[in-house]
Amino acid sequence: MTAEHVVVVGGGVIGLSVAWCAARAGHRVTVVDPAPASGASHVAGGMLAPVAEAWPGEEELLELGAASLHRWPDFADRLARDAGMPSGLRPEGTLVVGVDSADRTELDNLADYLARLGRSVTRHNGRELRRMEPSLGPSVRAGLSVPGDLAVDNRVALAALRAAATAAGAEFVTARARAVRAGEVELEDSALRCDVAVIAAGARSGDLHPLLSGAIRPVKGEILRLRARTTALPPPTRTVRGPVHGRQVYLVPRDDGGLVVGATQYEVGFDTEVTVGGVRDLIADAEQVLPGIAEYALVEAIAGLRPGTGDNLPLLGWLEPGVIAATGHHRNGFLLAPVTAEAVVALLSGRTPPEEVKAADPGRRISPENGGQQCR
Amino acid sequence: MTAEHVVVVGGGVIGLSVAWCAARAGHRVTVVDPAPASGASHVAGGMLAPVAEAWPGEEELLELGAASLHRWPDFADRLARDAGMPSGLRPEGTLVVGVDSADRTELDNLADYLARLGRSVTRHNGRELRRMEPSLGPSVRAGLSVPGDLAVDNRVALAALRAAATAAGAEFVTARARAVRAGEVELEDSALRCDVAVIAAGARSGDLHPLLSGAIRPVKGEILRLRARTTALPPPTRTVRGPVHGRQVYLVPRDDGGLVVGATQYEVGFDTEVTVGGVRDLIADAEQVLPGIAEYALVEAIAGLRPGTGDNLPLLGWLEPGVIAATGHHRNGFLLAPVTAEAVVALLSGRTPPEEVKAADPGRRISPENGGQQCR
Repeated sequence: MTAEHVVVVGGGVIGLSVAWCAARAGHRVTVVDPAPASGASHVAGGMLAPVAEAWPGEEELLELGAASLHRWPDFADRLARDAGMPSGLRPEGTLVVGVDSADRTELDNLADYLARLGRSVTRHNGRELRRMEPSLGPSVRAGLSVPGDLAVDNRVALAALRAAATAAGAEFVTARARAVRAGEVELEDSALRCDVAVIAAGARSGDLHPLLSGAIRPVKGEILRLRARTTALPPPTRTVRGPVHGRQVYLVPRDDGGLVVGATQYEVGFDTEVTVGGVRDLIADAEQVLPGIAEYALVEAIAGLRPGTGDNLPLLGWLEPGVIAATGHHRNGFLLAPVTAEAVVALLSGRTPPEEVKAADPGRRISPENGGQQCR
Repeated sequence: MTAEHVVVVGGGVIGLSVAWCAARAGHRVTVVDPAPASGASHVAGGMLAPVAEAWPGEEELLELGAASLHRWPDFADRLARDAGMPSGLRPEGTLVVGVDSADRTELDNLADYLARLGRSVTRHNGRELRRMEPSLGPSVRAGLSVPGDLAVDNRVALAALRAAATAAGAEFVTARARAVRAGEVELEDSALRCDVAVIAAGARSGDLHPLLSGAIRPVKGEILRLRARTTALPPPTRTVRGPVHGRQVYLVPRDDGGLVVGATQYEVGFDTEVTVGGVRDLIADAEQVLPGIAEYALVEAIAGLRPGTGDNLPLLGWLEPGVIAATGHHRNGFLLAPVTAEAVVALLSGRTPPEEVKAADPGRRISPENGGQQCR
């Protein structure tokens, strides 16, 4: 079966990637979003870091992330070509650093865990780390080098995805979807008929379809966007992340001296206000890693809502005939965009999606015996 | 002599106040500013606090500030009436608080100094202070109550001043002045003829007239604008300021749960970027005073340039025939607006300005033997 008209609900990184790839594959595509590229994807750090973020018990997420990361270089090349603008991909790799002895233990556990999975990473002491990234502060005592974990400038990538989707023939409807049914996407005061609807509405997806109700919850995250001033040390070339006194922080360099610092994590409903305490903690943790940021300009402080699921895996697959779920990507929307788009295009054509996507089948979440919500 | 056409260069609080009062007094008034109400006045905390900010050796500034504060209630009433909108004046008074023993010594010195000048203030311990303002944190150990020192919502007042000036007949020219001479204000590619020009261009005033060159320097200040979230303790009703471990911080409540936290102080030229270190310090100091702000929303972080002078007094008076200086108000633009406007209107009509204004005569700064620049 080849779907004719595909309506993608949601214009974030997932929705745009699906729209672009589906339009490219010959489908008629319509994207529905009241404000494309303005939600959590606009806020994201853009790390493509399945290895640095690996967590015992989440092997399926690591495999899915690794499969998607593997696709990113080609995805980015094609994106830049189709869009006629940069994809935003940065090839410089990732360092995971720690400050105190508990952080060091956490790094050791991560390295051991990855080694058991056959993914070895290189350990470094503080001096070696500062040789790689001279802006790292003296508090940084230990670290792991993960050169394969990359990053992408989220806003550059979103602009490219939008341009590429448009160039491939996708159309945009500026409206909010209220519900999705087989054959129909209901808007505020009208409806769009379609052969297949793809729900890619992030944290708002749970309201759109009864089978998603309760399966996705908003996980608020705040980030800071900084820029190195001429008087300050330049930012690192690699993404630097770490447990800092046990708290996760990441610093993702952008071109032109930009640096994204993230991210807080709260479960407080649909709240996107930036709090003073969140900003305070992000600055404090980031300064432990890069003391020079005190001299950086604070360009923006902004919050978004990650779409969280009970097991941190997305919901990716047929929800019912005519309705595909491509949501619940939590902290991994940019990382998982290539494999998600490929999987959706395969489903649209009746082909089998990549093997690693099986674990994300939405059936696991909507069976009642699996309703518990865990979150690390 | 009564001036016919008055051109006011600068549309901040001083320029707008002068324009309004001069137009009200029957002058034809033109305000020249590329973006009125957008500079340091837009950033200001809006404290009207000559007593809380008194400093040994600055008795003339205290007298001038007290004279202007005395005029504020009438000024605000007239402003609200002429503008048909609120003036932004808040009558709740000011607390000066301290955290450590050095802060307490500073408060004692201030109280003793004010007593010697015949201005007594009331001392309070931490418990008394928390009875007045329950949101004060346990670190606050001592304080002074200065009920006569007030505050004004800077943005509300600017909107009212603009409306009142317009209602009184003032006209606005959206342009940047390049130079001011007797009888003429030179713009980018034209010139405005006038009988009297008033230089009220804040930190940029030094470039406009040779007699102001070097007499005014930009003093950068960063502030945060917060808003209490429903989950947080409400802000204090009074302005709370203090030395916190020796560093000055102020918290000025606004209507609707708003709170302005200021202000850093740097001398780094014409730089209005908000720095990470500045934000960090403001949050840290403000949290010592009001721990509940961690739960506040960070609405805005913004920087402005105070027009500093060598002795912290403004430059207020005839610069040469046909040119009046009304600039160099440093941290006190809102406080000194009423007395400045009254003085300029008096000068325009050939009358004697208020006695306290004499100390601000610009002649003191432009005589070469008095060129030293001090700044506390």
